Amino acid sequence: MVSGGQVLKEKCGIVAAWDVDEAAHLSYLGLFALQHRGQEGAGIICFDGKRMKGVRGQGLVSQVFTRDQIAELKGRAAIGHVRYSTAGGSLAKNLQPIWVEALDSEIAIAHNGNLTNAVGLRRRLEAEGSVFQTSSDTEVILHLISRAKGNFEARLQAALDEVEGAYSLSIMLREKQSLRVFVVKDPHGFRPLVVGKLGTGFFAASETCAFDLVGAEYLREVDPGEVVEFGPDGLKTWKLKKKAKTAPCVFEWIYFSRPDSLVFGESVYEVRKKLGELLAAADKKAGFKPDLVMGVPDSGIPAAIGYAQAAGVPFEMGLIRNHYIGRTFIEPHQSIRDFGVRIKQNPLKHSLQGKRVVVVDDSLVRGTTSKKINQILREAGVKEIHMRISAPPTISPCYYGIDTPKEAELIAANKNLSQIRDFVVADSLEYLTVEEIYQYVKPKTPMCDACFTKNYPVVPEVIGAE
Amino acid sequence: MVSGGQVLKEKCGIVAAWDVDEAAHLSYLGLFALQHRGQEGAGIICFDGKRMKGVRGQGLVSQVFTRDQIAELKGRAAIGHVRYSTAGGSLAKNLQPIWVEALDSEIAIAHNGNLTNAVGLRRRLEAEGSVFQTSSDTEVILHLISRAKGNFEARLQAALDEVEGAYSLSIMLREKQSLRVFVVKDPHGFRPLVVGKLGTGFFAASETCAFDLVGAEYLREVDPGEVVEFGPDGLKTWKLKKKAKTAPCVFEWIYFSRPDSLVFGESVYEVRKKLGELLAAADKKAGFKPDLVMGVPDSGIPAAIGYAQAAGVPFEMGLIRNHYIGRTFIEPHQSIRDFGVRIKQNPLKHSLQGKRVVVVDDSLVRGTTSKKINQILREAGVKEIHMRISAPPTISPCYYGIDTPKEAELIAANKNLSQIRDFVVADSLEYLTVEEIYQYVKPKTPMCDACFTKNYPVVPEVIGAE
Amino acid sequence: MVSGGQVLKEKCGIVAAWDVDEAAHLSYLGLFALQHRGQEGAGIICFDGKRMKGVRGQGLVSQVFTRDQIAELKGRAAIGHVRYSTAGGSLAKNLQPIWVEALDSEIAIAHNGNLTNAVGLRRRLEAEGSVFQTSSDTEVILHLISRAKGNFEARLQAALDEVEGAYSLSIMLREKQSLRVFVVKDPHGFRPLVVGKLGTGFFAASETCAFDLVGAEYLREVDPGEVVEFGPDGLKTWKLKKKAKTAPCVFEWIYFSRPDSLVFGESVYEVRKKLGELLAAADKKAGFKPDLVMGVPDSGIPAAIGYAQAAGVPFEMGLIRNHYIGRTFIEPHQSIRDFGVRIKQNPLKHSLQGKRVVVVDDSLVRGTTSKKINQILREAGVKEIHMRISAPPTISPCYYGIDTPKEAELIAANKNLSQIRDFVVADSLEYLTVEEIYQYVKPKTPMCDACFTKNYPVVPEVIGAE
Amino acid sequence: MVSGGQVLKEKCGIVAAWDVDEAAHLSYLGLFALQHRGQEGAGIICFDGKRMKGVRGQGLVSQVFTRDQIAELKGRAAIGHVRYSTAGGSLAKNLQPIWVEALDSEIAIAHNGNLTNAVGLRRRLEAEGSVFQTSSDTEVILHLISRAKGNFEARLQAALDEVEGAYSLSIMLREKQSLRVFVVKDPHGFRPLVVGKLGTGFFAASETCAFDLVGAEYLREVDPGEVVEFGPDGLKTWKLKKKAKTAPCVFEWIYFSRPDSLVFGESVYEVRKKLGELLAAADKKAGFKPDLVMGVPDSGIPAAIGYAQAAGVPFEMGLIRNHYIGRTFIEPHQSIRDFGVRIKQNPLKHSLQGKRVVVVDDSLVRGTTSKKINQILREAGVKEIHMRISAPPTISPCYYGIDTPKEAELIAANKNLSQIRDFVVADSLEYLTVEEIYQYVKPKTPMCDACFTKNYPVVPEVIGAE
Repeated sequence: MVSGGQVLKEKCGIVAAWDVDEAAHLSYLGLFALQHRGQEGAGIICFDGKRMKGVRGQGLVSQVFTRDQIAELKGRAAIGHVRYSTAGGSLAKNLQPIWVEALDSEIAIAHNGNLTNAVGLRRRLEAEGSVFQTSSDTEVILHLISRAKGNFEARLQAALDEVEGAYSLSIMLREKQSLRVFVVKDPHGFRPLVVGKLGTGFFAASETCAFDLVGAEYLREVDPGEVVEFGPDGLKTWKLKKKAKTAPCVFEWIYFSRPDSLVFGESVYEVRKKLGELLAAADKKAGFKPDLVMGVPDSGIPAAIGYAQAAGVPFEMGLIRNHYIGRTFIEPHQSIRDFGVRIKQNPLKHSLQGKRVVVVDDSLVRGTTSKKINQILREAGVKEIHMRISAPPTISPCYYGIDTPKEAELIAANKNLSQIRDFVVADSLEYLTVEEIYQYVKPKTPMCDACFTKNYPVVPEVIGAE
Repeated sequence: MVSGGQVLKEKCGIVAAWDVDEAAHLSYLGLFALQHRGQEGAGIICFDGKRMKGVRGQGLVSQVFTRDQIAELKGRAAIGHVRYSTAGGSLAKNLQPIWVEALDSEIAIAHNGNLTNAVGLRRRLEAEGSVFQTSSDTEVILHLISRAKGNFEARLQAALDEVEGAYSLSIMLREKQSLRVFVVKDPHGFRPLVVGKLGTGFFAASETCAFDLVGAEYLREVDPGEVVEFGPDGLKTWKLKKKAKTAPCVFEWIYFSRPDSLVFGESVYEVRKKLGELLAAADKKAGFKPDLVMGVPDSGIPAAIGYAQAAGVPFEMGLIRNHYIGRTFIEPHQSIRDFGVRIKQNPLKHSLQGKRVVVVDDSLVRGTTSKKINQILREAGVKEIHMRISAPPTISPCYYGIDTPKEAELIAANKNLSQIRDFVVADSLEYLTVEEIYQYVKPKTPMCDACFTKNYPVVPEVIGAE
Repeated sequence: MVSGGQVLKEKCGIVAAWDVDEAAHLSYLGLFALQHRGQEGAGIICFDGKRMKGVRGQGLVSQVFTRDQIAELKGRAAIGHVRYSTAGGSLAKNLQPIWVEALDSEIAIAHNGNLTNAVGLRRRLEAEGSVFQTSSDTEVILHLISRAKGNFEARLQAALDEVEGAYSLSIMLREKQSLRVFVVKDPHGFRPLVVGKLGTGFFAASETCAFDLVGAEYLREVDPGEVVEFGPDGLKTWKLKKKAKTAPCVFEWIYFSRPDSLVFGESVYEVRKKLGELLAAADKKAGFKPDLVMGVPDSGIPAAIGYAQAAGVPFEMGLIRNHYIGRTFIEPHQSIRDFGVRIKQNPLKHSLQGKRVVVVDDSLVRGTTSKKINQILREAGVKEIHMRISAPPTISPCYYGIDTPKEAELIAANKNLSQIRDFVVADSLEYLTVEEIYQYVKPKTPMCDACFTKNYPVVPEVIGAE
Repeated sequence: MVSGGQVLKEKCGIVAAWDVDEAAHLSYLGLFALQHRGQEGAGIICFDGKRMKGVRGQGLVSQVFTRDQIAELKGRAAIGHVRYSTAGGSLAKNLQPIWVEALDSEIAIAHNGNLTNAVGLRRRLEAEGSVFQTSSDTEVILHLISRAKGNFEARLQAALDEVEGAYSLSIMLREKQSLRVFVVKDPHGFRPLVVGKLGTGFFAASETCAFDLVGAEYLREVDPGEVVEFGPDGLKTWKLKKKAKTAPCVFEWIYFSRPDSLVFGESVYEVRKKLGELLAAADKKAGFKPDLVMGVPDSGIPAAIGYAQAAGVPFEMGLIRNHYIGRTFIEPHQSIRDFGVRIKQNPLKHSLQGKRVVVVDDSLVRGTTSKKINQILREAGVKEIHMRISAPPTISPCYYGIDTPKEAELIAANKNLSQIRDFVVADSLEYLTVEEIYQYVKPKTPMCDACFTKNYPVVPEVIGAE
């Protein structure tokens, strides 16, 4: 979900469709449901029975694909990708799925995650004469597959044996006239990836919200290190050789995934409500009861509802989002304070005036957006602002597929609690701890919480190099 | 606010700016805040110190105006309009503000409302040689002004003395090099219209949410039959000769206006919460307590929050809206049941399964969208659906500026309570009555509730003719 | 035809279609053929059997109309318009056909020309209460028709009895369910207008080049003061009461019309060749023979061919036009001398080097474009440039529908022959005289040559007022 | 130049800029001048002092690049490409320049021509693990460079030693912070490529018409097998190891290049005039003298002018081109005969009626367009049509960078002279022979004339394989 001022960004979302009518069209719907995982670009490659065809472009899913293009992307198999990208220039080089064609075969690949040893691998491949047309680490996987020997399964094993880090992949492979689709999750299982049944075929996606739209029936989360292969004989599953400690990303629950998704087997909405309950429990214990509780739209709302129910405090909307907001809103020359926030959200003055308010948000990264929102709330007459963050302080970057600011920009890595509170013009500020989250939410396996704890499951090159 | 399946539509919203920097740009922001009052077209006319200039076009505010156009619309006075329009063809003839130029003067006019004797007036004017270039009744006002004698005030009085029905107007008048702006409300005061202070100048708009964005300070609602004139000497106010029973539209509170607006002097959000409290009180009296309460996004949510607080029942989100939804979403050929609703909203299955749910909505017009939403909720596993409408049954069309279906399409005009309940696949269904609303909300003057009661304050031609 | 740097611009072109399949589509083709008469906007109104429908927009014909729009404009009657417009702002107010609807009737009107008493008429109409929505004098005609009494023929007579100046009109009239189309030429017959047969129906247009594309068969030029009426009984023709001295525009032959058109009964190409022959005859008489002759593309070429044939001098292309030139060509910051001309035309250096060249152009208005072209030719190595203008010096503006610069900007009104020659960096310069043109081309009636002679057939208000 | 119905298409045009202000912007102008060499796509890569940046897209040069993009492409070096492409799909995969980045270097490459052993090379490279992202043979060159050893010069030599066929290349190479640009012509010298001086730097392009627009001074044609290297020390030149018989494409003179270009050291316009002179000489010898001669616009006109001068026959325009023609012209449902030609060209009926006309065109490929044009001319009243082709009969496809139909579609490969004459509804038809062309035009080296003679300088794979 997109919050008022989104700072942390998921780098991607993926889908795959096998043996379904209008595979590209359903992939388009699936990508639309995953739009929150990447708003900068999108792409679909399908197989029309003879060859692969595709469309990739910059912008939202609804902007990238035209009716005519979708109609042209015929066939019963497809993979797709939405991406968030910092890529400069206008060549749109890094759009996915990456698609390469040999004289007798084609491979398309879509990747959600981040390889932690991509630079070293790339340096070696370049020395061996490989030509890179993108700066994406996804291309590294392709070159490794291409240089490996044996059948495709052997080459995929060999390639993934060499890469480290986070990857949930959709791969479409044509060998002469024979087609297969694979979805793969890295051995740590950092990013979510689910498979479902759709008619006689299958659908896979980063989150179950994509299933709800296309009408797929949820089967299960792909296991860490698992390859699910869709082929002429239906679904087959096998394991990567490489083993690792399971480490699904806890931040998918806290912030990134849609609340209506099942992620790592849990309802995201229910997890977030529980985080709100934890916040309420702490306040109760401390003897603090506000006049009302509100969430920062949209991502803070489930935890605010959890807080309200647990604390017996009225839940109020607090801020109204403007749903017509576009990308290119024209700001006047005269200064309108906090214009960027104000154009998106407007406080419900008459409900807030003179009140002691708990404002729940799911993270506090740089702190600048929270500060602006709180300023707007104060102007609207709020008496006291008590910020409650439904997560621990974010103190360190993610190397597994989330776009985080550098440590120097993370407010919790640089200021103490009272400094942060002052910065965001709040009267009080509280976070959760990793321990109380695990104790209350009870995940089935250990999770990756490196952004809160610096306990990185895989040491990235960039750190090793320092 | 736009509900999942908007059926009733406000026909327009208007703004006016006087003696402010970047008047057209602020009008653009004001129209953006009023976007819910009209999504089919928008226009701004400004005065650049010598002449009027303007831009009008079809689509959303963010689509109609380009950065270059806004930059070209210089000057310290402007009026603007957003419109909902069923107009066919591509001539965009009926876009507003309507702008006419005489050799020594110019008039631009923007209208929110609907004249009830426009056809008769037009027939007379045509017989007298007037040439109409639009099918809008706003043009009738212009012709009447043009044919009247005396100074502009006298001509405006004379013109408005002849028209009947609902009109909130913004008028910009240039006479030689002298400029004035007028905002006018009809004697019944059907539609909202507020004036505010902005720096040394003024800003007027259909709702206060426009003030919050441009930073204007709310002064007051324009009175029924009042003309507020902005000129070289600042604000002047005078009354129309014609008198009538005050009749502000109660549906602005219930449905149309934004919850963060003050309308007719009341906070729309607070009024809607009260309507939810009334629904809760009735259920309480009947001894009914659900497991949870949810609102149909977005317009049903404030009343659902009111219900939750009054009934002591947990408020839950129930449905997640997709914020990336565009106008031209491409539907697959294979049927996806209730696709139109499903693409916009997705139920929180795991919170709803097996629950007895109160679903609050602010109206039930044709009933078709509610039916689809309830079907989706049932598929998600809801055990019992108890629909609660925070308004009386809509039984008759509006002739004062709301686009309503014909009586034959209004479900409450054609089915009884249990038939409606069955149609929308609910387990129970309750409405409010006009009387309990007035008793609890306590409006300062009588209101127009003709769509619930058929008590029309002005008999429209169309009925008179039947 | 558009020359390298078009200065004089035809204000409009019109078409009308009666009783033909796809009337709007054929009108679109006709307007496309008339694109040289107006590149700023276009519009078509058709009658679908019940009502009028239309599309108007800014830009070229190929930009204004989409495939879907053309497909929607069904019916067997239509009128259309292309316009050149200096109108500021983006309201596109002055696009034509103007289309007004009364409760029982509709009129659409398209106008090529310029009324010389429009301001006075408009002042009177405004005083009587008429409301003007455009600044075009076409609207004056509509108001006069609307205020007149009697049937439509009487009202049209009455209206046109009052207006003075140049008008070739297409009018579409719906009265209840009955439709007629009229094409009308003013009593002087300033602007061209032709009627043709198309299947069982008719087609009318400003020039015959429109007939060639739609496959219409040329019948004849409309007479000055004639009304051609297309109705249920086919073609009817009657005369306006007002009489005047016939005065077709000689500049249509010299410059504006397409060379492949018949205008005022003559082949434009053949007339232009004759003008070149006259230029050659003068040079022959003076004992001057160049190495080669070229025309300034495209409009100077037919006269250059005539010169070549008469003088026995080789015709060469001289300049190559770039056909890919678009409207929004991006100029570099570093100065490229004469960039605007250079991007459109490139000299054939190797054919021009060291040669004594006659450069034929059809007019020399401000002289700035000719200067740039001659500079480019000199840089390409031309030894001597002998400019020959296939017209007399332009010394006075047109008030009958051509957009001409003010007298202060007309080079021939402000400099003598040798000064002009020096300004355009030519070695010699010659014009034709009105007398020799008439003697050689032998027009059937006297023509309007006011831009060369100041003999204005109708005194315009603007002059009368001075 | 684009003829009425272009059948043969140049596959590409290239530019390179070194050490000039606004290198990308000048490349854009250069590509604009080369637009006739490729209208399907365009791209520019520049070096901003640190890294390469670029824009590529589908469509005309004026459509692909926006003002903002050009402004962002800063720096003093750039290469560019226009392409004609039959590529299906919308991935625009085959747009050039191809741009690859290694961790320490970047290479961009633009190619005009066609490799005749690309498939075999690609098969080998793929077997060795190379990953191809396009289907273009340009990528083969990149992989060969990448896999070769030594410094860049050695690797370029090694790579080009392996490829066969036609290539004129622009290459931009960044190694760490050091930049060089290379332009290269294959040992046969099939396609044109010229270098010029521009201020303190250099500009290279497929044809000199690009120089005229950017203001570069022509230095010379690049030699067959020559590498011109632009680096910190200015221009350096060296030779490829591979030697071959010189074989510049004679069709560049006859048809493809712009008449205002110098190609292979000759003025294209003058060569074409000479071809017309040859046609006239043959007719003279045969005792045939027509009433007039015309060229099929635009490419047939120079030869028609040559014919006219040599034969002493009047040159006439014959057909008028519509300059407003766009790509998406909407055809009516009712059939308009020869609509595609008619929308572009209109005959000058009054000059052609009853005349015996020589119609000069530069080629006759399938014959279908000529047939349509001749039909239109006959309808216009031409008495006799004598087609004269300023080239020999096209009997075999090109494998060196021209898009030609298959032999089965080449009319001259399948019909004899009188059959062709009948097909194109001409009264007589004459071609030139290769021998008389060479004798009269006197090229400095042997040329490639395989499309007329089947004497292929390099045997292409596709033929070898048959």
